Amino acid sequence: MKICLIGAGRIGTVHAIAIASEESAVLHSVVDFHPEAAEQLAKKYNAATLTLDQAFNNNEIDAFIIASSTSTHADLIEQCARIGKPVFCEKPIDLSLDRALSCAKAVEESGIVCMLGFNRRFDPHMASLKSKVDKNIIGSIQSLTITSHDPEPPSMEYIASSGGLFHDMMIHDFDMACWILNDTPRSIYVAASAENEGIASHGDVDTASVILTMKGGAIVTIINGRQAAFGYDQRIEVFGKTGMLQVQNELENNVVLSNANGIKQAKSKYFFLQRHEKAFHNELVHFIKSFKEGIKPSVDISDGVLALRIAEAAQKSLKTGNPVNL
Amino acid sequence: MKICLIGAGRIGTVHAIAIASEESAVLHSVVDFHPEAAEQLAKKYNAATLTLDQAFNNNEIDAFIIASSTSTHADLIEQCARIGKPVFCEKPIDLSLDRALSCAKAVEESGIVCMLGFNRRFDPHMASLKSKVDKNIIGSIQSLTITSHDPEPPSMEYIASSGGLFHDMMIHDFDMACWILNDTPRSIYVAASAENEGIASHGDVDTASVILTMKGGAIVTIINGRQAAFGYDQRIEVFGKTGMLQVQNELENNVVLSNANGIKQAKSKYFFLQRHEKAFHNELVHFIKSFKEGIKPSVDISDGVLALRIAEAAQKSLKTGNPVNL
Amino acid sequence: MKICLIGAGRIGTVHAIAIASEESAVLHSVVDFHPEAAEQLAKKYNAATLTLDQAFNNNEIDAFIIASSTSTHADLIEQCARIGKPVFCEKPIDLSLDRALSCAKAVEESGIVCMLGFNRRFDPHMASLKSKVDKNIIGSIQSLTITSHDPEPPSMEYIASSGGLFHDMMIHDFDMACWILNDTPRSIYVAASAENEGIASHGDVDTASVILTMKGGAIVTIINGRQAAFGYDQRIEVFGKTGMLQVQNELENNVVLSNANGIKQAKSKYFFLQRHEKAFHNELVHFIKSFKEGIKPSVDISDGVLALRIAEAAQKSLKTGNPVNL
Amino acid sequence: MKICLIGAGRIGTVHAIAIASEESAVLHSVVDFHPEAAEQLAKKYNAATLTLDQAFNNNEIDAFIIASSTSTHADLIEQCARIGKPVFCEKPIDLSLDRALSCAKAVEESGIVCMLGFNRRFDPHMASLKSKVDKNIIGSIQSLTITSHDPEPPSMEYIASSGGLFHDMMIHDFDMACWILNDTPRSIYVAASAENEGIASHGDVDTASVILTMKGGAIVTIINGRQAAFGYDQRIEVFGKTGMLQVQNELENNVVLSNANGIKQAKSKYFFLQRHEKAFHNELVHFIKSFKEGIKPSVDISDGVLALRIAEAAQKSLKTGNPVNL
Repeated sequence: MKICLIGAGRIGTVHAIAIASEESAVLHSVVDFHPEAAEQLAKKYNAATLTLDQAFNNNEIDAFIIASSTSTHADLIEQCARIGKPVFCEKPIDLSLDRALSCAKAVEESGIVCMLGFNRRFDPHMASLKSKVDKNIIGSIQSLTITSHDPEPPSMEYIASSGGLFHDMMIHDFDMACWILNDTPRSIYVAASAENEGIASHGDVDTASVILTMKGGAIVTIINGRQAAFGYDQRIEVFGKTGMLQVQNELENNVVLSNANGIKQAKSKYFFLQRHEKAFHNELVHFIKSFKEGIKPSVDISDGVLALRIAEAAQKSLKTGNPVNL
Repeated sequence: MKICLIGAGRIGTVHAIAIASEESAVLHSVVDFHPEAAEQLAKKYNAATLTLDQAFNNNEIDAFIIASSTSTHADLIEQCARIGKPVFCEKPIDLSLDRALSCAKAVEESGIVCMLGFNRRFDPHMASLKSKVDKNIIGSIQSLTITSHDPEPPSMEYIASSGGLFHDMMIHDFDMACWILNDTPRSIYVAASAENEGIASHGDVDTASVILTMKGGAIVTIINGRQAAFGYDQRIEVFGKTGMLQVQNELENNVVLSNANGIKQAKSKYFFLQRHEKAFHNELVHFIKSFKEGIKPSVDISDGVLALRIAEAAQKSLKTGNPVNL
Repeated sequence: MKICLIGAGRIGTVHAIAIASEESAVLHSVVDFHPEAAEQLAKKYNAATLTLDQAFNNNEIDAFIIASSTSTHADLIEQCARIGKPVFCEKPIDLSLDRALSCAKAVEESGIVCMLGFNRRFDPHMASLKSKVDKNIIGSIQSLTITSHDPEPPSMEYIASSGGLFHDMMIHDFDMACWILNDTPRSIYVAASAENEGIASHGDVDTASVILTMKGGAIVTIINGRQAAFGYDQRIEVFGKTGMLQVQNELENNVVLSNANGIKQAKSKYFFLQRHEKAFHNELVHFIKSFKEGIKPSVDISDGVLALRIAEAAQKSLKTGNPVNL
Repeated sequence: MKICLIGAGRIGTVHAIAIASEESAVLHSVVDFHPEAAEQLAKKYNAATLTLDQAFNNNEIDAFIIASSTSTHADLIEQCARIGKPVFCEKPIDLSLDRALSCAKAVEESGIVCMLGFNRRFDPHMASLKSKVDKNIIGSIQSLTITSHDPEPPSMEYIASSGGLFHDMMIHDFDMACWILNDTPRSIYVAASAENEGIASHGDVDTASVILTMKGGAIVTIINGRQAAFGYDQRIEVFGKTGMLQVQNELENNVVLSNANGIKQAKSKYFFLQRHEKAFHNELVHFIKSFKEGIKPSVDISDGVLALRIAEAAQKSLKTGNPVNL
């Protein structure tokens, strides 16, 4: 399976590594608006560099991975739809729900595989929890709590084009909630604040707690923050009639120090690149498998639309101070 | 310090045990509407049985502990105020905020010590967390999450007169939130459901998630449920700028079994009587100390009024589906 | 059950507290060579003070608890045997195995109940582990590891009359090993050292690792030390064909702090008085029960003789550097 | 760096994967007595297949990795010494200490780099513990306890040529002890048994506890077993004057299930291939680095000789039942 990677930045590099470690896939070519970035990554993995036009006209390429900036996602997905090639695209589809909807329509009409990069579904811990929920190990679900804190705020440049906390960060948790519960929300209520002055000056928030009432009755609480002193904090707790399932953080190592100050373990792994190394790999394996076996990937463009819809409702609740129905 | 205990039920017995284990206090007498209950407890601890009238006219008695049913609390507190004797009363003051306010007024005018039974403040783990928050060990607080699940629903008889989940159960968490943060809420939003048909038939809920936005800006999430398969679940998580503090459940024992099924530890202690054995004792020690040293207890009738005010707002939010300002 | 307590020191006080908290037992009287110590404890618990002679001639007394210094144990037990009254005695019976044997003979001939203070058997965690082993939850036992560290070395005065690490400290672990495995050792090998100069100057050791090969084939490792920076360290690990059981330390509290330095929990409880509060109580309850129901206590003088026999072999192995057969 | 891999079995495959994921190294060729095995692995990683003669005469090859059966190690290392090429060899050098000594002499005279596969030193947890010991974080070391259990016994074929538990399995722990403490043993005492009849019939043991007294005074306990119901069990505990350091097992995932049966986590990772994935990679990186920078690897043939010397003494102690001086 020959893959063309569009976007040679941080997340593009992660995909390149995953491809390299997978026998049945090859990094065919790299596209980036910064030719040096493309060059550097291509060289490392023995791939070609192409322009966008060359890539979309190259018959050797089996599939595309889109890891460029958010504003380009919808256009690039639509180009893949036009030429009928499978595409894996990082979330979100677009910051605008309307644009995402038109893009989803194009994908649907073309019939191409379009997998979205909700990588957390492929985290081995999250996947194990989900499979236990599906096997009814804790009975009917009453409440779900998702806690996500980044280790530190992104650059102000990133914040400026991120679409805000709900579209950029909590969108993962919206997807997780719907995925774990096989359900969609009936209403959403947001309480949020901005402690960081830079983030506040962009009209964004850095701390938010959200309650989703799901159509099936389960109550979801999502707690997000842009800064955690102890590393990447990504935990989940599902409370059911006959038990509770939790995913705990991955620590940097398993060493325990006991001394006069108490008992000390390592911090959480620093960020998503460390914590989700396996998730990025598993996600690619799933994309390759769906390509080879011609099956629909477990996460597609409709999941991206749903998550965006919730993010938009979250923004509205933040603005009005009231719950918003979906 | 000679104590008269009013109420010889489950919680009254807990107080009797605590008094017995404290050198500087003596169970002077027991009052209960069921004479046999009073008799039984009094006999066990070598105390007298009295009627209410006898108790309030007995000069030997130094202080009262009220552990009778909620509907009697306000009247009994007021009687203590009238005769000028210190009183410890179980929460809540009353199910009606108005009645609680008039009672608080009587207490204030009398100048008596009136300590309220928010026992969780005296749990050694909670107290240790609170002292660390006060010492600024995790910097300014951004969010607080309180999770409380009972092991199983109370009897329908209890539910009928409980005042509902918010007045009966979550009132502890409202108090914890205000206490830990030294703050009061600006608004409250409730999402809740009733899985248990009996509870639903009383117009009550058994599962609730609540967001409180505090005046100082911190966001509080409270998650409550009337049933947990794994015992008493009472955890807390405070997230600050420079760290996070958590209180974890107490387990039944420290034995770990590793076998082909995984690694297994004991369940949480079964209920508040097991978990809060130390808290009930520490609470009494504090009451005795405040009596002996003539100082104001750290939790008094105004804390009970505040918690009731929040519970009432919670009921209103549940009814309207909208956040309620306080 | 009216109990006379001989010895009003640290451990005597622990027994007095346990008696006070037990309904069915009463502290009748206290005997101590230091009359002020006896006086103080007796006053606190409303008991009499007696001389030894008075105590052994007092018909009201139902049973004796011996918590005086080791050198007095055997004589006092024999006096109880002579007057035919049940006795609970702290370990060890004596520092000399010969003296312990003659004492055990006297006890046997008299037919009195003589329970020995191997309190760890009554620790709720250890007792739970033992019951799981007996229920065959981990199959046949292959190895057992016991780790015991005190928080800090005792006074040199204590060391001088302690009989050394094996008779004073590891004797508990010898008893635990035999008890958990229902077995006795075939041979013992000791490796030890003295880091502490004071301890070394008494010809004693402060760090020791011991291998016992049990008659049934299980291999026991015991690791002891007189000093642990993180509090009282008393863990156990039983490795069986179908699983492993461990008892972990009890921590001072359940608070977890996560920050830039890592994840921190409280230290272990400081010493045996804190860790074994429940064990001392349960042990007394067992003594009372054996008295009331006329049954043999689960730990008696023969267990004390066995543990001493192993301690003596340990000393011999330390001296010769070779394993010693038992 | 072009590497020739000798041995295409289980451990050879692990090395091939590590080489493939390392940019600066290439799998040049594979040698195996079973041509199909060599063929299969070579094909997967785009390498050549060679005979031994071809390999030792091929000028393109920069270095050798020996992952063939133990009996071939010493001869192959000596051939590398003869042609002056760096070699990485799996442990042990040979089952005979004499043969290992003559091999080590050849290596020394040739001056080649000869790194030994004590992979556990490169486990991130063990490496972190070691670095904390070296930084004196727990003060002077008094005792060290190493626990290693395999998930299940190897085949009887493997047992037959393994050299026995001490040369095959505990040799890793002998190396760990010397490495962590920067010390060598003064004496060793072994207690062991064979529960497994097949293993017993080969004159081997499957359960062993060993005490090493180190020259510097620290006491080392090693506990080994060929079977653990809960997966690969590889823990370590270093006890120092000012604290204790432990490495705990890696679990299969971080999911926690709490229900009426207790609190359950996943088992340990199944075996060394799962647990030591990172260690095998880090080990190769170290070999490459020592090649590129011309520096001595941190673990060389002398470490292999030392570990063998201890294993031989262990066998002698097992046979005689007495401690053996080194």
